[in-house]
Amino acid sequence: MTQSREAFEARLRQIGVERYHDKHPFHHLLHSGGCTPDQVRAWVINRFYYQASIPMKDAAFMSRVTDPALRRAWRSRIEDHDGTDQNEGGIMRWLRLADAVGLDRDYVASTDGVMAATKFAVDAYVRFVRDKTLLEAVAASLTELFAPKIHAARIEGLLQHYDFADDSSLSYFRNRLSEAPKDVAFGLDWVLTHADTQEKQDAAAAALTFKTDVLWAQLDALHAAYVTPGAIPPGAWQPGTHLVPARAKAS
Amino acid sequence: MTQSREAFEARLRQIGVERYHDKHPFHHLLHSGGCTPDQVRAWVINRFYYQASIPMKDAAFMSRVTDPALRRAWRSRIEDHDGTDQNEGGIMRWLRLADAVGLDRDYVASTDGVMAATKFAVDAYVRFVRDKTLLEAVAASLTELFAPKIHAARIEGLLQHYDFADDSSLSYFRNRLSEAPKDVAFGLDWVLTHADTQEKQDAAAAALTFKTDVLWAQLDALHAAYVTPGAIPPGAWQPGTHLVPARAKAS
Repeated sequence: MTQSREAFEARLRQIGVERYHDKHPFHHLLHSGGCTPDQVRAWVINRFYYQASIPMKDAAFMSRVTDPALRRAWRSRIEDHDGTDQNEGGIMRWLRLADAVGLDRDYVASTDGVMAATKFAVDAYVRFVRDKTLLEAVAASLTELFAPKIHAARIEGLLQHYDFADDSSLSYFRNRLSEAPKDVAFGLDWVLTHADTQEKQDAAAAALTFKTDVLWAQLDALHAAYVTPGAIPPGAWQPGTHLVPARAKAS
Repeated sequence: MTQSREAFEARLRQIGVERYHDKHPFHHLLHSGGCTPDQVRAWVINRFYYQASIPMKDAAFMSRVTDPALRRAWRSRIEDHDGTDQNEGGIMRWLRLADAVGLDRDYVASTDGVMAATKFAVDAYVRFVRDKTLLEAVAASLTELFAPKIHAARIEGLLQHYDFADDSSLSYFRNRLSEAPKDVAFGLDWVLTHADTQEKQDAAAAALTFKTDVLWAQLDALHAAYVTPGAIPPGAWQPGTHLVPARAKAS
């Protein structure tokens, strides 16, 4: 049976309660100060691949939208990450975090040390958006419903526990606190409006569930490789390498 | 043998000399005042499909670009067509032309009356950009090298021969006179730099040739359907329909 708008929204939010990656052990470790510097670095390196792929995902979405108004509304997401004349953008902000944790930013930007498991998960998301219905693509973006809470917790936890954390290195998360709610208000309304049959509601819920898997799988891979000793897969970043001598602040 | 930068640029430009659609009989008819009002309308309706697909093509390109700087440089093409807070954009300007020739702009925007042959050609271009190498995708965009000349000729021809032509209805073409050279300077330099082997130069030349086919095929279909009497395919716009009573200027 088709759910009411309110019941369907509650169903989507429940997916976040049960499956969002704020519940992953790696995030508990990170936010509580339990990560070694190298574990933080491994997270920065791998998570960069996700950040850098998001504008490609959003462009893939726009490439399938025939309505100029919807494309125009969506375009700001690419601007938020790639930057504009007035805004350095999320990708550059993430590289400032890479600087702050002592990594060579060119190495991070190259994505050379990213684990294959990270790439598989992220690339699966880009392909999902390229191949599935527009409704499923928008629904998958709704993990942003749950993001402000984790970003706020992360800012607080990192500031409290790690020397590298300051306004500059954490600016990515501060910016997302204001950008994500704007995007998700649009996306949530779009999904609630367009998922007007049970079949579409089920597809949208499945898409959001898929996206929580994409996020969770990245942390599973990170935890398995860098928290368990001796488990780093071939080709992935080796702790102690690609560091810069002095912790350079972003130029 | 790999050609020099200069020789390769000359080869690309020669493709325009031989194959660009400024040589198509329909354009001669249009620019010389030989089209009936309904033939102009058929052109406006079908060409809208191309205009409206270009931002999807550019988003498809961006969805495959891993370099944020290249995505950022390319993004202005989407802004030029879809519009920004300061710029109504090419698609809206084309609909003003639809108003001026007496067509119902909602019908034009629906793309319902577009010929299948037009859609096949344009969709082939979007798919080409989605599937081929980035070099081929950029090379295909280089028909813009040849566009300012045809736009200038079109503005002059339409103003001289048709009542509907004025600054408002022709604003699409005037804007392209300044937008296209900016884009093509970037694209040409990119292609000349990246096509650094004979194989890549051949691929880039083939891509530009393909794009001239995309443009030419649209005019062949238009000419066959609307200049030859009795040849309009099923489902395509029928002359005399979807007109607005008074020629409304754009709101």
